[in-house]
Amino acid sequence: MRACAMRNHKMIVDTLPDPEPQEGQVLVKTLACGICGSDLHMLKHAERMIEIGRRSGQGEGMDLKRDVVMGHEFCAEIVDFGPNTTKDLKPGTRVCSMPIAIGAQGAGTVGYSNEFPGGYGELMVLNEMMLLEVPNGLSTERATLTEPMAVGYHAVEKAQLIGGEISIVIGCGPVGLAVIAALKLRGVGPIIASDFSPMRRTLAEEMGADVILNPADHSPFEKWEELAVPPGVDIRDPLSAMLAGDQVKPCVLFECVGVPGLLQQILEGSPRNARVVVVGVCMEADQIEPMYGINKELNIQFVLGYSPEEFAATLQNIAEGRTNVDPLITGKIGIDGVPEAFEALANPEQHAKILVEPWR
Amino acid sequence: MRACAMRNHKMIVDTLPDPEPQEGQVLVKTLACGICGSDLHMLKHAERMIEIGRRSGQGEGMDLKRDVVMGHEFCAEIVDFGPNTTKDLKPGTRVCSMPIAIGAQGAGTVGYSNEFPGGYGELMVLNEMMLLEVPNGLSTERATLTEPMAVGYHAVEKAQLIGGEISIVIGCGPVGLAVIAALKLRGVGPIIASDFSPMRRTLAEEMGADVILNPADHSPFEKWEELAVPPGVDIRDPLSAMLAGDQVKPCVLFECVGVPGLLQQILEGSPRNARVVVVGVCMEADQIEPMYGINKELNIQFVLGYSPEEFAATLQNIAEGRTNVDPLITGKIGIDGVPEAFEALANPEQHAKILVEPWR
Repeated sequence: MRACAMRNHKMIVDTLPDPEPQEGQVLVKTLACGICGSDLHMLKHAERMIEIGRRSGQGEGMDLKRDVVMGHEFCAEIVDFGPNTTKDLKPGTRVCSMPIAIGAQGAGTVGYSNEFPGGYGELMVLNEMMLLEVPNGLSTERATLTEPMAVGYHAVEKAQLIGGEISIVIGCGPVGLAVIAALKLRGVGPIIASDFSPMRRTLAEEMGADVILNPADHSPFEKWEELAVPPGVDIRDPLSAMLAGDQVKPCVLFECVGVPGLLQQILEGSPRNARVVVVGVCMEADQIEPMYGINKELNIQFVLGYSPEEFAATLQNIAEGRTNVDPLITGKIGIDGVPEAFEALANPEQHAKILVEPWR
Repeated sequence: MRACAMRNHKMIVDTLPDPEPQEGQVLVKTLACGICGSDLHMLKHAERMIEIGRRSGQGEGMDLKRDVVMGHEFCAEIVDFGPNTTKDLKPGTRVCSMPIAIGAQGAGTVGYSNEFPGGYGELMVLNEMMLLEVPNGLSTERATLTEPMAVGYHAVEKAQLIGGEISIVIGCGPVGLAVIAALKLRGVGPIIASDFSPMRRTLAEEMGADVILNPADHSPFEKWEELAVPPGVDIRDPLSAMLAGDQVKPCVLFECVGVPGLLQQILEGSPRNARVVVVGVCMEADQIEPMYGINKELNIQFVLGYSPEEFAATLQNIAEGRTNVDPLITGKIGIDGVPEAFEALANPEQHAKILVEPWR
């Protein structure tokens, strides 16, 4: 099959062996696959990501001396079946799946594995039990957004909102936009969205953020204070803050950038009792001053991925029009365009989500 | 009055002006006051603590050019009343109070303020509305432990335990011991306690920890795994871990040390989904690798202090024998002994809590 593989820290288009479905697996044709920021991270920091994965108990990880076909945000079409499959879904059925595959070699992540090629190739093998049929009438490109939108859905679930919170979304790339969509879905507002990029601020507005600002001009924390603190309450005065109690609307902040230094900025800027959900993936070591966290009793919840139920719910929400994904899709390319798209995605003014359509 | 004050970054015994009760305040005689690790921190890092307090919205803080009489863990006796007091509690009544005072100058912390001297002096002024009478029959020295025990009580409250968790307490100084006591009170177990110091391990056992270990010899995380993970489940295998689900008992870890580097060790060592409650006060900047938090979806809850309800409940728990504080009290001194006690507390083999009895 034709595929774009990570090889010697480069994205290389080549012809690779077709994957073969093993027990319980199906062979699928990739219809579309989104390019994820994590893949850009992986290309840049592969050794480090694998090492941390290993040290945090996620197994051996990939062998970088061999090709890795990335791409874990996909919609595909059933082509053929391996042994011991039920064949309940027929060939030609469009499906989504969490990018987890289970083979004779154990479990692996589709798109971050030597055994399970991802969606930057024409063919993949997926586990039949993981397949979700794309509901009738939902376009392939919208279905392809299930995976990144599930990340936002999960982050909002982990925030354990009880209603009445004011949310701040720092960073309006695909992850931040998915968080905004999930907050809208829950009817939580107002949502304050912050990004340096004019294009991303426009996207945040299209996704339904209520207050959109450029952090170079306005502090999201000042905006929170305007909206959350009743007149006459001084949240900097411990007594006034204590007496105000429940009148101050809680601050829940979603960190959707993932660069060193940002967490410390958030610790410094956050009001007391803020909850910080870290969705952005910071690969580097980072420096914080714990005293800020202590003085304000902050909570930091790191999040990753989603559950099978959250993934399925997200596909359903997109299919039924409750989650709008259209603003995110800013480009479509074939396999040959992948290396260039990896470059283009570094510029926030150009793209949010680029879809790879390998059959192009 | 005689007092030991922080002056030019030293602890100096001197005669200072008596404090005078203002509106709503009472004058009290300090019966006993515990020396807190935070006071040792303050002596060493005063400028930095004040600066961070200021930057995290806690007001201007102390003027270090003037004397500060520290000491915020006290039991005292009512001596006299300021204007506009109800005098419901009579002179001679023994009282505890949260170390918060409200005067014409605004609110301040007793023991971390130029206006409100703490318990390392013979006299203090407290707000009448904050006073809690020491229940009949409770010894002064036990009542004095209310404040530090409330810190542990609050930390355990913030952990939002639902039952079934296995707790790890890292560091068995007074804060860690207070956390162990609060966990026992809730009937949560087993409690794994970890400290390098043999004396502190003995104290942890006396406070009721179930498994006590020296981290130089045994990893608390391995011990957690032994107790929490059913046979046949491999928590390092994502599939096995997912299938095991609720069979794995959650890990809740209390960081009760507060030194740079420890948080990263905890991020590396913790199992997936662990909740880390940071009770230890780390004054320095600290380095973490967020990827560990992300890969394992860890939660970090920073905590500080306690609520008025938690403080009152702690005094009641001590009075009614539900919370045992006796093992913590390892020394008693007069005012003249304070400077030396600050030195002695650096050695974990010598002391847990030293009580200052200014009338000695």
